[in-house]
Amino acid sequence: MANKPSIPKGTRDFGPEEMAKRNYIFDTIKQVYALYGFQQIETPAMETLQTLMGKYGEEGDKLLFKILNSGDYLKSISDDELKERNVLKLQTKLCEKGLRYDLTVPFARYVVMHREELQLPFKRYQIQPVWRADRPQKGRYREFYQCDADVVGSDSLLNEVELMQIIDTVFTQFGVRVQIKINNRKILTGIAEVIGEREKIIDITVAIDKLDKIGLDKVNEELHADGISEEAIEKLQPIIKLEGTNDEKLDVIAEVLKDSEIGQKGVEELRFILDCLKQSGLNNEIQLDLTLARGLNYYTGAIFEVKALDTQIGSITGGGRYDNLTGIFGMSGLSGVGISFGADRIYDVLNTLDLYPKESVLGTQLLFINFGEKETAYCLPIIAQARNAGIRTEIYPDSAKMKKQMSYANAKNIQYVALAGETEMEAGKITLKNMTTGEQALISADDLVKAILN
Amino acid sequence: MANKPSIPKGTRDFGPEEMAKRNYIFDTIKQVYALYGFQQIETPAMETLQTLMGKYGEEGDKLLFKILNSGDYLKSISDDELKERNVLKLQTKLCEKGLRYDLTVPFARYVVMHREELQLPFKRYQIQPVWRADRPQKGRYREFYQCDADVVGSDSLLNEVELMQIIDTVFTQFGVRVQIKINNRKILTGIAEVIGEREKIIDITVAIDKLDKIGLDKVNEELHADGISEEAIEKLQPIIKLEGTNDEKLDVIAEVLKDSEIGQKGVEELRFILDCLKQSGLNNEIQLDLTLARGLNYYTGAIFEVKALDTQIGSITGGGRYDNLTGIFGMSGLSGVGISFGADRIYDVLNTLDLYPKESVLGTQLLFINFGEKETAYCLPIIAQARNAGIRTEIYPDSAKMKKQMSYANAKNIQYVALAGETEMEAGKITLKNMTTGEQALISADDLVKAILN
Repeated sequence: MANKPSIPKGTRDFGPEEMAKRNYIFDTIKQVYALYGFQQIETPAMETLQTLMGKYGEEGDKLLFKILNSGDYLKSISDDELKERNVLKLQTKLCEKGLRYDLTVPFARYVVMHREELQLPFKRYQIQPVWRADRPQKGRYREFYQCDADVVGSDSLLNEVELMQIIDTVFTQFGVRVQIKINNRKILTGIAEVIGEREKIIDITVAIDKLDKIGLDKVNEELHADGISEEAIEKLQPIIKLEGTNDEKLDVIAEVLKDSEIGQKGVEELRFILDCLKQSGLNNEIQLDLTLARGLNYYTGAIFEVKALDTQIGSITGGGRYDNLTGIFGMSGLSGVGISFGADRIYDVLNTLDLYPKESVLGTQLLFINFGEKETAYCLPIIAQARNAGIRTEIYPDSAKMKKQMSYANAKNIQYVALAGETEMEAGKITLKNMTTGEQALISADDLVKAILN
Repeated sequence: MANKPSIPKGTRDFGPEEMAKRNYIFDTIKQVYALYGFQQIETPAMETLQTLMGKYGEEGDKLLFKILNSGDYLKSISDDELKERNVLKLQTKLCEKGLRYDLTVPFARYVVMHREELQLPFKRYQIQPVWRADRPQKGRYREFYQCDADVVGSDSLLNEVELMQIIDTVFTQFGVRVQIKINNRKILTGIAEVIGEREKIIDITVAIDKLDKIGLDKVNEELHADGISEEAIEKLQPIIKLEGTNDEKLDVIAEVLKDSEIGQKGVEELRFILDCLKQSGLNNEIQLDLTLARGLNYYTGAIFEVKALDTQIGSITGGGRYDNLTGIFGMSGLSGVGISFGADRIYDVLNTLDLYPKESVLGTQLLFINFGEKETAYCLPIIAQARNAGIRTEIYPDSAKMKKQMSYANAKNIQYVALAGETEMEAGKITLKNMTTGEQALISADDLVKAILN
């Protein structure tokens, strides 16, 4: 007896129902991306370690899955090196390849390698799994899909506008009410500049973020404790107490940042984006949120984040503008802006809110009961007719007991069952049973097709 | 300056056009699989080495990509073991996981692990990449997609019938004329039995396969050289000279195999399958071919193979009936039958014969030229209207030179370009240019949508 099989921790099998739901999510996102002119690409699961290493920080390097070289992988390693047991040093000799960790670095590598063929601006989307040797926990997997869209080679803010529209359209199609949060790195830089605390911007946003929970006094205390000067805290007051519409907020920020060139640039950018979105009209609210500081180490302009309103799950989509995507591969001056839908979390949201359209999880529509060879021969042309009409149809392959066949139909959630015995064959008809209503009728093959398609 | 990036040998990037074509292939296959009641599953890219090793022979074990354990991967290895440099032994200590090599073993593992949830017969399809550390060469990659459909838990030959119909339907939809070849392992066993040469069945099929090229005398010489007795060669003559319709061939074989129980069973099975297919009517020819001996080490019943008629490329689809799929994981008695479309070769066939439907590779349909902020503001609601109507629409993000924007439209093969300058804005209209015909007209937003959708 063989061992009971298992799968690597942090990985998952997806069964038919999960796949149907996931396909619904991916297909919806793909179709919206395409509506905005984004084109799909795919890159290999494996990249060279040279491409991957050093791109995600020291921690990221550790979380890369590395692939053992084929053949004599010890060839280039001396006995002394082996004895030394320097795990980090040895791994780059044992392995030349790793599994991709995200879709951004492979995309940057793609752009550089295919620069000659690419028409800029290049609007690409990519939906593929990525792998991280993270400690698995609830909602965190070692293999998961990312759904990225990026535009490279254009500084225009229209790209930001359209990405917000894409987010709005996707969640509208899902029926999920969301709040889109937007910020701008240049505004944060401007604030730090104006108050003379360039290094403290993260501390500041963290403190401001607590206003609702702990109140103004405590926020100011915290800023003080962070080592921010009284004068700076004074200057920050309008920013901390920021409220009202996006326009009102922008007016306050513009006033505070009137002496910061970069800050004014940030205000201008945000104003343009929000004005454009006002014109086209979003279904979901977009809110300027200065505490939004994700990816601060690489975003250089707009920063986005999306939260579901009717269930608590954290960010379900994010993105922003970055400069110099391809600089790491020696091709500089290419700016980009992108978003990434969190497919696994969106899956959880749609499950929690029960928002999958019925058709999206529908498999087989019609099952023919198998009564034996003669009856099957009678059914085959009718089955072909149903399939030609686009009806997803099965015949139970064995002439098993009726009960077994019916429970197969139930388990697969098949709505119609067709039966043909002596009576039906003599009449040249079929009995069609609606499994939901229990109704059944003796009808012709043509009428069977019509009944199911209506 | 960073190093010029590259990808691991034997792997590929897929650009927008290749992706569109590949999606067309996968979508067609998926939709036909669904029409026959197959449900999609996905399994992780990584499996435990325990699941993978020993399933593909010694050579297969070598071709598995193995993933270095995270953390201190040398922990469980002693200095002596290191010094010994036994590469095969060490790799199972360095690595616990590998990349899947095919979709069959992961499927067997899936069935065993999910046996409680599965409703048998289980009809699953799976379209995912697999990885093999093979020497890359023309048409052979280290990462490639497989498109498998299998039914497990049913011995019924109706499954074989439906798989042949699926093949027929898929290639009909592609517009590729194919020949479907079918054989039965039981017939081959019967032949070997009758002529008393159980071990020589491969030699025999190889020799018979050469009849057209080298003629009967040479075939008989070759059989003789293979050590097959004169008596056996005599008995083989009707089999070697086999010709005519499938029915005629089956009659001859039945006569030759009249004393072999297993042979008769094979004839019966094939007759049933071919009779059913005659009734439902295939678009492509199905031909009984005794020289078809693929997968002889695991197929136990029907064997299938598909060849394109209008281009030479070898087998583009194959499959067969196997017993005991899950026996390797301790769950015995489960028979299965399946097929696998060779996506990469089908891609080449469709390219060679230029058979992609125009719509399948169509990206953006409409590009708005960007003349500046004011004009863009005028266009945004019209763009939204076009997208709401389902038209894949872009606005060039920067107000670049007209020539640059038009060459973007050309490079992306965009059929319609919309322009709005002073004149159009005053008239409350848009100039729509058909890039194929060169025609242009000043029309309303409503008419623009209609013009493109018709």
